Amino acid sequence: MQTLSSYVSGKWQEGAGEGAVLVNPVTEEPLATTSTDGLDFAAAAAFGREQGGAALRAMTFGERAALLKAMSKSLHAHRDALLDLAIQNGGNTRSDGKFDVDGATGTLAAYAFLGKDLGDRKLLLEGAGVQLGRSSRYWGQHILSPREGVAVLINAFNFPAWGWAEKAACSLLAGVPVIVKPASSTALLTFRMVEILVEDGVLPAGALQLVSGGPGDLLDHLTEQDVVAFTGSAATGRRIRAHQNLIHRGVKVNVEADSLNSAILAPGLDPDGDTSRLFLREVAKEMTQKAGQKCTAVRRILVPTDDLERVRDELAAALEAVVVGDPSRSEVRMGPLTTAAQLADARCGIETLAGEGRIVTGGPEPVDAVGVEGGKGYFVQPTLIENTDPANSTEVHRLEVFGPVATIMPYDGTPAMAADLVRRGEGSLVSAAYGDDVSFIGELITGLAPWNGRLYLGSEKVADMAVGSGAALPFLKHGGPGRAGGGAELGGLSGLRLYQQRTAVQGDRGLLNRVLPGKD
Amino acid sequence: MQTLSSYVSGKWQEGAGEGAVLVNPVTEEPLATTSTDGLDFAAAAAFGREQGGAALRAMTFGERAALLKAMSKSLHAHRDALLDLAIQNGGNTRSDGKFDVDGATGTLAAYAFLGKDLGDRKLLLEGAGVQLGRSSRYWGQHILSPREGVAVLINAFNFPAWGWAEKAACSLLAGVPVIVKPASSTALLTFRMVEILVEDGVLPAGALQLVSGGPGDLLDHLTEQDVVAFTGSAATGRRIRAHQNLIHRGVKVNVEADSLNSAILAPGLDPDGDTSRLFLREVAKEMTQKAGQKCTAVRRILVPTDDLERVRDELAAALEAVVVGDPSRSEVRMGPLTTAAQLADARCGIETLAGEGRIVTGGPEPVDAVGVEGGKGYFVQPTLIENTDPANSTEVHRLEVFGPVATIMPYDGTPAMAADLVRRGEGSLVSAAYGDDVSFIGELITGLAPWNGRLYLGSEKVADMAVGSGAALPFLKHGGPGRAGGGAELGGLSGLRLYQQRTAVQGDRGLLNRVLPGKD
Repeated sequence: MQTLSSYVSGKWQEGAGEGAVLVNPVTEEPLATTSTDGLDFAAAAAFGREQGGAALRAMTFGERAALLKAMSKSLHAHRDALLDLAIQNGGNTRSDGKFDVDGATGTLAAYAFLGKDLGDRKLLLEGAGVQLGRSSRYWGQHILSPREGVAVLINAFNFPAWGWAEKAACSLLAGVPVIVKPASSTALLTFRMVEILVEDGVLPAGALQLVSGGPGDLLDHLTEQDVVAFTGSAATGRRIRAHQNLIHRGVKVNVEADSLNSAILAPGLDPDGDTSRLFLREVAKEMTQKAGQKCTAVRRILVPTDDLERVRDELAAALEAVVVGDPSRSEVRMGPLTTAAQLADARCGIETLAGEGRIVTGGPEPVDAVGVEGGKGYFVQPTLIENTDPANSTEVHRLEVFGPVATIMPYDGTPAMAADLVRRGEGSLVSAAYGDDVSFIGELITGLAPWNGRLYLGSEKVADMAVGSGAALPFLKHGGPGRAGGGAELGGLSGLRLYQQRTAVQGDRGLLNRVLPGKD
Repeated sequence: MQTLSSYVSGKWQEGAGEGAVLVNPVTEEPLATTSTDGLDFAAAAAFGREQGGAALRAMTFGERAALLKAMSKSLHAHRDALLDLAIQNGGNTRSDGKFDVDGATGTLAAYAFLGKDLGDRKLLLEGAGVQLGRSSRYWGQHILSPREGVAVLINAFNFPAWGWAEKAACSLLAGVPVIVKPASSTALLTFRMVEILVEDGVLPAGALQLVSGGPGDLLDHLTEQDVVAFTGSAATGRRIRAHQNLIHRGVKVNVEADSLNSAILAPGLDPDGDTSRLFLREVAKEMTQKAGQKCTAVRRILVPTDDLERVRDELAAALEAVVVGDPSRSEVRMGPLTTAAQLADARCGIETLAGEGRIVTGGPEPVDAVGVEGGKGYFVQPTLIENTDPANSTEVHRLEVFGPVATIMPYDGTPAMAADLVRRGEGSLVSAAYGDDVSFIGELITGLAPWNGRLYLGSEKVADMAVGSGAALPFLKHGGPGRAGGGAELGGLSGLRLYQQRTAVQGDRGLLNRVLPGKD
């Protein structure tokens, strides 16, 4: 069986002991083991800062952009093999795998595009300069420079490719080296990606390190210029935020955690119109893509009371048509959850949500999965729960069941009530609103914006080019307030902020013009 | 004796018990008492969110700007009485008091000016929109909207006027109500300012509340849309960052804490030139203004080895000329520290720093203060310490002595060594560099920027209009990385960010144009 080693301090190193076992979630067969016991994380962090950081900071944005482009090309050249790993270790369908792997190479390419435009600069100016004295001779300008640390990228099991690549794109372009720590359960894909990049010699020494497995005492060795970018459960996110060394040294921490994302159908729509069709199609897809294991998946579906019965039945029919089974088979539309623990959690969560309503389709029971023998695999049926009293329910606004599971609920058709229900989720990554009425959408934006990192508007005019609310795009912010962790990733160049120090510089305007790079 | 009550839930309320005693740091006589025991902070937070937040969010930026202007005018009308309180309770000279009180009214006026420009808008657009689909019909735009919570402004004892006003200017303009919590020891000035604003009826109910004294269980009642903006010691800053409820609910926290700010003299300057003169004048002022009790005060003075002896002696002479005594007397240039505890800490700190070098002038001994009888008052002499081996010292880069105390040290005249010494402070609010050589300053900026929130450049061309490195200006960011807390305040409209939620909105471009406010 394969042993996944870590790539730290410039070489591949195996941890001690038996290690954790990675399995195929369809067959439950072991695929690989991984351990980081005994690795010297203090040395790894120092190696990143000293070698990788120095090399990256010596480069211009244009040169760093070229690195990202080379990373994207190297990985894309192995696309089919990477998709196979996503299927084997992640339980992904080929389409799910593309969402992850192409998401990774696409985001790297998008940041390469942004960085190329910045050309020869090493520092960025932020905003316009400002006159500070009696005359414009005394001047102020904000600048953004690379932090002189390492970025530790702690990723969730559900996106072993995109999860680290979207963070690394921002960090490396900013000039900050990365240490990638995938979730152990799906580390195979991440491991292979880093292996490819090392084999191809794409990056300078120390710019990209890999911790295949537990983080050991890595966080204890971080210092004031380092960064932790975490995606995962709210509980782990809180532990990281409360970590004594990170607080003591003022290490920058970004958290993306749970999120009870909503999809809202506006009132008064033609059931056969483009907007209603878009809503149904996208909600069914957001529930079942990657077996619902997306932090941006729809968990709460808000439908005007008058439309509830019809929409519920249409959506149930769409979910029942989804073929569940071995994701390596072409007819299968949805694979299993990723681990036995995830399966147990999802079943338990379905029971809890159903306790406040009723199961319309699906449920916690074992699934007769296509192409799978002997009851193996961590399968859950696409599950729709109906909750007719969401204003007096708590679990539906609190419990994120990380699987193909959502709750449909009525609202009175006003933006006020829709926003009130969304707010009960205490902060979300994304809410989607489907409607064509300008005043309804306008009011909804005002009510939803403080509680969401992203608002996705589906309407007639864009029904043919909408990308789905679950896709985190390179040019839009990814991250939500409150329960969602309060983080911010991506969003074009503002995605680099986490890895940059913002500094105000004040002095003689003529001097500033000579020592700071030109704006354009 | 006066009892300072709190202004919460729409009325003045006194806490139970004897309370803490505020004294005059010159005479050590008690001035007032304050207690918050038994106050209902859950109700205060809810009152702020529901009454103040709703009222502010219903206003346009122009209307909120008018509130700030009215606040500034109301307070300025009582300027002399407020300066008297700064002298009595803060040990400020009149000039120190102006720095604080005029800083408060000036910052409110500056944000009123910025807000007026935004006119009828309630939401702000951030950055340019971006094309997301095959055609520009599918569009994305980032927006900034007010958080639906309260902002708890926890301030340090050294700026009882500016400290809360600069935070409140940003919060109120963003549309978020505030709860002001001054340090107990100097709460008299803050109390009177809020009293004036309440008497004048300047703000809507719930927009401005005052907690005169301990915060009780206030932080336990904050939720995901609330904000804590803290200025004070690193130890308290860490306690706030680690506060269980704040972490659990994802409350936004901003910290400004300790900072070993540096002033660097470039090599090769004419000792009698404008730049050298500016350096000496400003360093002496930054050390003694407000008796050195400024988070932006200069603590480390870096001078080329060849210039050390001369600069040390000139600076010592300037410090010895500072008249220390009762700050209500016109000939006095520096008053006492603010409390007995601060005095004890400063004396102890001077001993520690002197242990790595020697005292050039000043020291921990009692001071024969002008106009003060019987050895009363918390006075410290302006103190310069010389440390000739800063690369092998630790305390000078670690211990912030919060008084008129700084250490002068040699460096080899290269930007690399200057930056290396600054870095040992592990993150600062501001570093100042005095020089006219473009390549020296340019290299220094690159080396210093990641470790500082602000860089202050003093040179010949601006010697006549320089404002001093210690002044935090409304249009420049205030806040530094690492030890300095990692926070960001002020900086023009970006000072509002802490109180705003940033949200990406994506959809039909025509729809977005209709529901979002125009850019200009």
